[in-house]
Amino acid sequence: MINVGVLGATGAVGQRFVELLADHPWFNLTTLAASERSAGKPYGDVVNWRLETPFPEKIAKIKVKNITPSAMKDVDLVFSALPAEIALDVENKFADAGIAVCSNASSHRMEPTVPLVVPEVNPEHLGLIDVQRDAGRDGFIVTNPNCSTIMMVTALAPLRKFKFTDIRVATMQAISGAGFAGVAAMAIYDNVIPYIGKEEEKMESETLKIMGTLKGKKIANAPFRVSASCHRVPVIDGHTMAVWVDIKESVETVEKAYLDYKPPIKGLPTQPKESVHLFTDEPDRPQPRLDRMRGRGMTVSVGRIRPGLRFVAMGHNTIRGAAGASVLNAELIVKKKYL
Amino acid sequence: MINVGVLGATGAVGQRFVELLADHPWFNLTTLAASERSAGKPYGDVVNWRLETPFPEKIAKIKVKNITPSAMKDVDLVFSALPAEIALDVENKFADAGIAVCSNASSHRMEPTVPLVVPEVNPEHLGLIDVQRDAGRDGFIVTNPNCSTIMMVTALAPLRKFKFTDIRVATMQAISGAGFAGVAAMAIYDNVIPYIGKEEEKMESETLKIMGTLKGKKIANAPFRVSASCHRVPVIDGHTMAVWVDIKESVETVEKAYLDYKPPIKGLPTQPKESVHLFTDEPDRPQPRLDRMRGRGMTVSVGRIRPGLRFVAMGHNTIRGAAGASVLNAELIVKKKYL
Amino acid sequence: MINVGVLGATGAVGQRFVELLADHPWFNLTTLAASERSAGKPYGDVVNWRLETPFPEKIAKIKVKNITPSAMKDVDLVFSALPAEIALDVENKFADAGIAVCSNASSHRMEPTVPLVVPEVNPEHLGLIDVQRDAGRDGFIVTNPNCSTIMMVTALAPLRKFKFTDIRVATMQAISGAGFAGVAAMAIYDNVIPYIGKEEEKMESETLKIMGTLKGKKIANAPFRVSASCHRVPVIDGHTMAVWVDIKESVETVEKAYLDYKPPIKGLPTQPKESVHLFTDEPDRPQPRLDRMRGRGMTVSVGRIRPGLRFVAMGHNTIRGAAGASVLNAELIVKKKYL
Amino acid sequence: MINVGVLGATGAVGQRFVELLADHPWFNLTTLAASERSAGKPYGDVVNWRLETPFPEKIAKIKVKNITPSAMKDVDLVFSALPAEIALDVENKFADAGIAVCSNASSHRMEPTVPLVVPEVNPEHLGLIDVQRDAGRDGFIVTNPNCSTIMMVTALAPLRKFKFTDIRVATMQAISGAGFAGVAAMAIYDNVIPYIGKEEEKMESETLKIMGTLKGKKIANAPFRVSASCHRVPVIDGHTMAVWVDIKESVETVEKAYLDYKPPIKGLPTQPKESVHLFTDEPDRPQPRLDRMRGRGMTVSVGRIRPGLRFVAMGHNTIRGAAGASVLNAELIVKKKYL
Repeated sequence: MINVGVLGATGAVGQRFVELLADHPWFNLTTLAASERSAGKPYGDVVNWRLETPFPEKIAKIKVKNITPSAMKDVDLVFSALPAEIALDVENKFADAGIAVCSNASSHRMEPTVPLVVPEVNPEHLGLIDVQRDAGRDGFIVTNPNCSTIMMVTALAPLRKFKFTDIRVATMQAISGAGFAGVAAMAIYDNVIPYIGKEEEKMESETLKIMGTLKGKKIANAPFRVSASCHRVPVIDGHTMAVWVDIKESVETVEKAYLDYKPPIKGLPTQPKESVHLFTDEPDRPQPRLDRMRGRGMTVSVGRIRPGLRFVAMGHNTIRGAAGASVLNAELIVKKKYL
Repeated sequence: MINVGVLGATGAVGQRFVELLADHPWFNLTTLAASERSAGKPYGDVVNWRLETPFPEKIAKIKVKNITPSAMKDVDLVFSALPAEIALDVENKFADAGIAVCSNASSHRMEPTVPLVVPEVNPEHLGLIDVQRDAGRDGFIVTNPNCSTIMMVTALAPLRKFKFTDIRVATMQAISGAGFAGVAAMAIYDNVIPYIGKEEEKMESETLKIMGTLKGKKIANAPFRVSASCHRVPVIDGHTMAVWVDIKESVETVEKAYLDYKPPIKGLPTQPKESVHLFTDEPDRPQPRLDRMRGRGMTVSVGRIRPGLRFVAMGHNTIRGAAGASVLNAELIVKKKYL
Repeated sequence: MINVGVLGATGAVGQRFVELLADHPWFNLTTLAASERSAGKPYGDVVNWRLETPFPEKIAKIKVKNITPSAMKDVDLVFSALPAEIALDVENKFADAGIAVCSNASSHRMEPTVPLVVPEVNPEHLGLIDVQRDAGRDGFIVTNPNCSTIMMVTALAPLRKFKFTDIRVATMQAISGAGFAGVAAMAIYDNVIPYIGKEEEKMESETLKIMGTLKGKKIANAPFRVSASCHRVPVIDGHTMAVWVDIKESVETVEKAYLDYKPPIKGLPTQPKESVHLFTDEPDRPQPRLDRMRGRGMTVSVGRIRPGLRFVAMGHNTIRGAAGASVLNAELIVKKKYL
Repeated sequence: MINVGVLGATGAVGQRFVELLADHPWFNLTTLAASERSAGKPYGDVVNWRLETPFPEKIAKIKVKNITPSAMKDVDLVFSALPAEIALDVENKFADAGIAVCSNASSHRMEPTVPLVVPEVNPEHLGLIDVQRDAGRDGFIVTNPNCSTIMMVTALAPLRKFKFTDIRVATMQAISGAGFAGVAAMAIYDNVIPYIGKEEEKMESETLKIMGTLKGKKIANAPFRVSASCHRVPVIDGHTMAVWVDIKESVETVEKAYLDYKPPIKGLPTQPKESVHLFTDEPDRPQPRLDRMRGRGMTVSVGRIRPGLRFVAMGHNTIRGAAGASVLNAELIVKKKYL
């Protein structure tokens, strides 16, 4: 068992980390860190638990710590649910202090020596950890992509054997993606908001890095064009997206690629039985309310493969698209013996 | 004043017709027709008025008629809000009986001699009325497109001066598009349904006809490729759509085209001051709840023009996209002296 | 293990029965019955699974049967999720054929010899089974109350030691209470419907029977006045209700009664650890989205106890309020050795 | 024409004031005041217009002022949409400076010399203005009640001829009542929040003052007991409430009282044709989405009168329940020649 901590443990993604780690077979959740306002108090007293699963009582008494490496000396790995503006600096400090950081924040994602990883898509990018270590760092930082990007690249993974260079994606994203208080009810109820700050840029740049190739000490970006249009819809959890990709093969061939697909890794505890679930006979699936909890929230669902080539992808944005993604990365790190 | 009637006056689109015609300056709403169950009873007794505007009391006492030409001898024009499976036959009978039919149903839209018209886009297609008359019919049928198609072609109209052939569109459509009882609350609440039967096919075929060219007695389809992905979202009224079109001009040039745009017709009572409203400074608009009633529900709003070329379009699906579209066509028919 | 079947297995409550019985420790779900349209086909082919839990694949192949006792000879007990208009007759036939019927339908609830039972409230009413048997029936019928009534009587159970006779209740009920297609999205979205047919009457009459006393072969109604006002709100699952009851004791005394409460039965597999959960420190709880799955959907949550005496109660209407209630009754029947 | 201003003109209620005053026949909206951040800039530049009606362009250029009497010397009356914590002090300053204040804030409502008025219920309470003036003030303050209280007392007004002393009310309140950003989407979507801070206390105390009697220079509270239970539901606009009142008369007698009802004032521009609309034949009305705009948002709708005596009342919380209430009070002040 590896001792782990969560940075930013009281927020929306932080609570998902706690939920996923409370009974983890490889990780022992010993430390919860949050803002100074909460530090020193029992987690159960300061967290306003907003998940639909019961609060894990056994960690209610853990005293919340400050977000500093010195306060968290017993942990070997931290999960970061920090806001981007804080994460940049703080995560560097933890990595410098010899701690492995699995971050859901966007701050370090595009740094050349930081792996931006989805285990089913580019596990070999963990090789950049060595580059960080070679540069003299004791710990390291590994990031997972933006929630929308994760759904798309996971859905594209089985299609890599086909040739394509042009991707269009229109997203219909859930309100939980903005955190508990991020979207006012008056703003989104009976409405669509056709704009999410920096989301399109993230989908367009992160996808090229993730689907790129590790050559020596560098990632060569994938030679794609990605054009995204991102929208918020009145859904609690689950990002849905309509994707076009310029694959010339038939629908049958593409469906077969999904059905035959074997992810490049297996045996991680948080990994679902199916990384990608394909709907072939139900024309109206996937749907976020009915399908987001597939694979305990870790399966990306794909359906409506039509000529064009068009399909619909959907996954749980705060599990597969955030906390679960980081936990899966941490498991990969352990399996690949970087820790 | 021209005496008009509404076929299918008690349903969702039928009620919108009644709302728009109750005080119309050119049309005198004398006749309301509905299924046999309602025939013979006062409209106010049989309609379950579900619009947010007050019920127009002055027509409450009008006795509902059967949907037959013989029951509606005093009208020169009927608006059809009939379901497609009934409309095919019934609308033919009315046209054969010498009555002008402005139909919102899909049944006749793709017939070669039936105009499929959006006044701001292809008013000259009304020329097909003469083709119908030459074939010996006393009346005629004019149709308006599917609600999603209307928003898209109206938003594309100012861009016709640019060269383009490839259109991708992902829609986020309102529940009212399926009628009052068309979507169960359990199906759409906290959900997205990524499928609307035949909607993609309609957007793909109707667009080519509308943006095509009347040559002699025939429409030559526009040389486009349209690829649509249609989705239902939890919004009451207002279809939003993300559009890609392969225009090479800059965002500024395209925005100027919208700002300079003058529709090819003017002076129709139901026509809004702006057929297309462009948002340039608000990155999060248009939004259905805030913008659907612009121009009394007849303006299509466009925003977020970005390189790609990408934009977002939105309009009120049961006003601009259905009843209002038919009424506008009827006004065009009168102005062009086909009646 | 007792072989059991479900009548009306494809509907909203029927699917909940299947979900609860698929892995039941005492019951072996062998038989699924539905309308003639489905009979003879595998359950997995005819059911349109709408629950958020995964479909229990192991029963996908079970062939659906007709709803007749002769088609279900291997079962000793059936759960009825039939609509009221069918249930009256069909349930009698099953009981006459020697089968125990646990019904969620309203048809037989108010019959003098049929127990209307919530195990935590009036388990002794099962004594009426003997009255049914004495009248010559081989099987018997046991019913559970209407979903709203269940929440209220379960919340009132810990208060029986206080004197009260006047109950007012205003409900805010979920859309799932009307079945999958029972409420149109256009009817309830951004809305409250202040009327649910026969719901107030059910709450007012059923409560008196459940909280009444079995004397000899008859139930003497509780000497209460219940006045209900029932409303539908845009919530998927979970009925919330504001209750006034003329108890003179202090809030502290009443809270203590909840905290000290021990239900009159224990050891039933579907019974939650807490029949009633009391919120004392969170002024804004219970909330349906956050609290409906407490006790796997079987716990009724109570909060906001204020002078008056006023409180708020909430529970999952299709689990605790329907299928789970029937299963709990069946478990009580087994434990009390009526089967 | 009387020159008027709005304090707090950019918020939710402030925007409603602007909407109602832009074309008012008696009031000339000359001044808009808001926080220092906005002061000095054109209103059109600083307001984020969130209403569904078009922004009144003619006031877009008005420069926003600071919220001080000296900045607003040309106005005789101000409408206050200030938050309660600011309103107490600021409104006193305006009244001291000789300006009439019509306030929607709660700060002064319960002060003995400040009228708390709904024109259809207690117009004679304006007599307290003289008490304020006798105390040496040049201007005066008049308040309107909390949004929920307004709906209830307006619905009770026609029943005053009957004897009653016990009122129970359970509310289902709209999210707009908390302002644009007051309720997070994650908090209320698919949910009911059974708590609104201080709302129950306001309904219980304000009702007694409004329905009390002005004797000399004081209000004698009405001899009622009011017991409220307040809940937030996922509705944009429109507060619905279930009311019990211990009237012994029959439903028919009570319905006749509503139908015969004549409010004690008439001829105010913002007053609707019907202060209270009674539904007698539609068992499922009033509903917020369908009925909130009745009387341009100023009519309170009542329905489902049943023995008990029970009924349902509903009205638009930011029009009748806030800005419209203040404007109506100002009109009453003018008509009664206090200005």
